[in-house]
Amino acid sequence: MSNRRKSSPPPTPELKRRGLLLVLSSPSGAGKTTLSRRLLARDPLFEMSVSVTTRKPRSGETEGVDYHFIDDKRFTEMVGRGELLEWAEVFGHRYGTPRAPVEAAVAAGRDMLFDIDWQGTQQLSQMMGEDLVRVFVLPPSAEELRRRLIGRAQDSAAVVAKRMVEAGTEISHWPEYDYVIVNATLEEADREIDAILAAERLRSRRRTGLTGFVRNLLKEL
Amino acid sequence: MSNRRKSSPPPTPELKRRGLLLVLSSPSGAGKTTLSRRLLARDPLFEMSVSVTTRKPRSGETEGVDYHFIDDKRFTEMVGRGELLEWAEVFGHRYGTPRAPVEAAVAAGRDMLFDIDWQGTQQLSQMMGEDLVRVFVLPPSAEELRRRLIGRAQDSAAVVAKRMVEAGTEISHWPEYDYVIVNATLEEADREIDAILAAERLRSRRRTGLTGFVRNLLKEL
Repeated sequence: MSNRRKSSPPPTPELKRRGLLLVLSSPSGAGKTTLSRRLLARDPLFEMSVSVTTRKPRSGETEGVDYHFIDDKRFTEMVGRGELLEWAEVFGHRYGTPRAPVEAAVAAGRDMLFDIDWQGTQQLSQMMGEDLVRVFVLPPSAEELRRRLIGRAQDSAAVVAKRMVEAGTEISHWPEYDYVIVNATLEEADREIDAILAAERLRSRRRTGLTGFVRNLLKEL
Repeated sequence: MSNRRKSSPPPTPELKRRGLLLVLSSPSGAGKTTLSRRLLARDPLFEMSVSVTTRKPRSGETEGVDYHFIDDKRFTEMVGRGELLEWAEVFGHRYGTPRAPVEAAVAAGRDMLFDIDWQGTQQLSQMMGEDLVRVFVLPPSAEELRRRLIGRAQDSAAVVAKRMVEAGTEISHWPEYDYVIVNATLEEADREIDAILAAERLRSRRRTGLTGFVRNLLKEL
């Protein structure tokens, strides 16, 4: 045994783990979309879940990036075959999360981000259970939420008022989430999301690679 | 509304939360005692749980700091009254965790650290359930564990051999813990423990102060 080995312990082995599914929900205007974009930009382990939808592409939207655009018949077929983890109808169009890419990602140790509301989260929870990490983002105050909604130049006063009512419904579901953060500043919210992810990646049930590691450890004792 | 308010959102309100109970378990020699000492030194929210024991104080040990030293009659009485969250007998002496200070700590939003083995953890899980955050500390290799045990000058070869056998039993219980970390370097293990604590303090169910905060938020929407 050399002195070098005594003074420098071996590095932590790179261990395979099961991926996690991060759900970020919040009322419109609480900063969820900005936080999602920042997370995807800084964390290479994450990819965004791409939904299927029956609505037509808008200008600037790309098939396979923004959505998978499918027709009503195909959507109905996917629902019937259990190929969607969650789905909803909004203004006459249907939106859903395909199961196959999500299951492939977690099995390969990749993480996926979902921008869905409390109803989608409830459906996803029933299907993916312990793979989920559910984070609710609260605005720091009602005044700040109103200010952020007004700040979006595109929305009329009527739309802002409607969004405030919807915000109340969404917010009332915060206790159904695993974690809750208050988005007072983006930097603080980023740090809190990073801590949640660092911890959740250390969860025993995700660390599938440890089974073999511990088996070898026990053999060598 | 002044410009100053527009450009600087209000700070996150200081919110009361329920305290958490951190259990660090590991085989002897994996660094648990060192990691505990470092955590208590850097994190002012933590205090160590002080056990009761029926053994006599050793030189240098202080009543109320290292242990509460009690007699057999009192210990039996505490067991009978359900005043201990977990207890065990080791080499003819009994050791246990008093319930009252633990319940007072979590209710007041203070966190407590427990240095207990897998059997104590199982008992504590039944009593304190969701207040617990259970972390198992693995050594990076069997060779490194042996080296650390040999490094403790006070232990004979026979004691080291016995510890290695006990280590196997302890390690086999790692899947019962919420989190598992590999203690390759103290700095990395510290960072992982800090991430786990930062995340667990953001858990919805501990953030009791948010109930009032959200009630006010909804009123003002």
